[in-house]
Amino acid sequence: MKIVLVRHGESEWNLANRFTGWTDVDLSEQGVKEAQAAGELLKEEGYDFDLAYTSYLKRATKTLNIILDIMDLHWIPVLKSWKLNERHYGALQGLNKAETAEKEGAEQVHIWRRSFDTPPPALDKDDERYPGKEAKYKSLTVEELPTTESLKMTIERVMPYWQEEIVPQIKAGRKIIVAAHGNSLRALVKHLDGISDEEISSLNIPTGRPLVYEFDQEMNVLNKYYLGDQEKIAQEINKVKNQAKS
Amino acid sequence: MKIVLVRHGESEWNLANRFTGWTDVDLSEQGVKEAQAAGELLKEEGYDFDLAYTSYLKRATKTLNIILDIMDLHWIPVLKSWKLNERHYGALQGLNKAETAEKEGAEQVHIWRRSFDTPPPALDKDDERYPGKEAKYKSLTVEELPTTESLKMTIERVMPYWQEEIVPQIKAGRKIIVAAHGNSLRALVKHLDGISDEEISSLNIPTGRPLVYEFDQEMNVLNKYYLGDQEKIAQEINKVKNQAKS
Repeated sequence: MKIVLVRHGESEWNLANRFTGWTDVDLSEQGVKEAQAAGELLKEEGYDFDLAYTSYLKRATKTLNIILDIMDLHWIPVLKSWKLNERHYGALQGLNKAETAEKEGAEQVHIWRRSFDTPPPALDKDDERYPGKEAKYKSLTVEELPTTESLKMTIERVMPYWQEEIVPQIKAGRKIIVAAHGNSLRALVKHLDGISDEEISSLNIPTGRPLVYEFDQEMNVLNKYYLGDQEKIAQEINKVKNQAKS
Repeated sequence: MKIVLVRHGESEWNLANRFTGWTDVDLSEQGVKEAQAAGELLKEEGYDFDLAYTSYLKRATKTLNIILDIMDLHWIPVLKSWKLNERHYGALQGLNKAETAEKEGAEQVHIWRRSFDTPPPALDKDDERYPGKEAKYKSLTVEELPTTESLKMTIERVMPYWQEEIVPQIKAGRKIIVAAHGNSLRALVKHLDGISDEEISSLNIPTGRPLVYEFDQEMNVLNKYYLGDQEKIAQEINKVKNQAKS
């Protein structure tokens, strides 16, 4: 039993070094190329899928569509959930990461970015960025609608979806790909690798790199690896860490 | 209560004037443009969707994805079913329409294309074109897997899907778009407009043109219209009729 996780390709705001969260920005040109490369690699390596999961955010959905196009798998069911969305970045959404570091101090920004349970400042509910104002979140309760999220809060919505929706499908033998986000995937990786609340802060997931987990019948992880050029992937993991530096 | 039906944009085999059926050919460049124009038009006219249906064939799925991209609706659920596929064209799949007319006679080809209940010659089950050989149809029973279809046989699989899956969603107030094929949409239009078995042969649906139906609470049709330039649409409807000539 296997699953493939992939973080969306570079977005327009990864490129602009802005806090994105639930802002629904598109892929950059580079992001489209990363998604294409992921699709080509999965095809070359003989991967096949019969079920896909993604978030409500187009940078993930489009990454998935590009991969499915290259693999000739447009016909498979694609299940979308806001529970796989990126961490909500609260009132930081839209701000430049380096500028925010200059203004608030690098240490404060590091805490907002990497603390396990300290969320960034919350949005007001009358802020135009509040997800309750968007049609796509109209089915969510007020309790479900975030105004900000720590990684801990993100985990609290991602993990029930994983356990209740995705795990039963893996156990049923379905071949699954999940196209999601840096922090919704960190939530999964934390769980799967048994990473502590402290250690998770230094774990980074590069964009557009298929990450494979293999399981035994009890969903214990047997093996875990990124597909592709291992040296480049190591460099990319390091690059993600340094985004808040000038 | 409303629904929007759209036939996929021109495919590579519409362009090559070949019988396509269940062959999973891609959109042509023109087909991509038609899908984009459909998306722009729906957006301009203020349409909104919260649910989409399409077939297992990529010319329909990709038409839908292009429309959803332009309308910023990548997040809505997309349900895919082989029951919305194009009519299976049997042993004619892959042959040129005009060449087949020269060889078999225009009248015979007209019968295969337009007869209500005479299917084209059937595929052998060991033919590489038999859908039972494709992973995407592995969940179908032998009885469900077509070797050829008349329009009547197409209707027999499209209409239960319409009644059981789509109509309850329309009645529940969902705003729906269906991206499908010339013949699966003719099946729906025949039912909705109350067209006889004889008259349906002269009904043509142009590619990439949003077709709107409005219903009362009992699903009686109140109004029906294509969006866009009515004169051009009339020309396109006529062009579809003349594909087997020269």
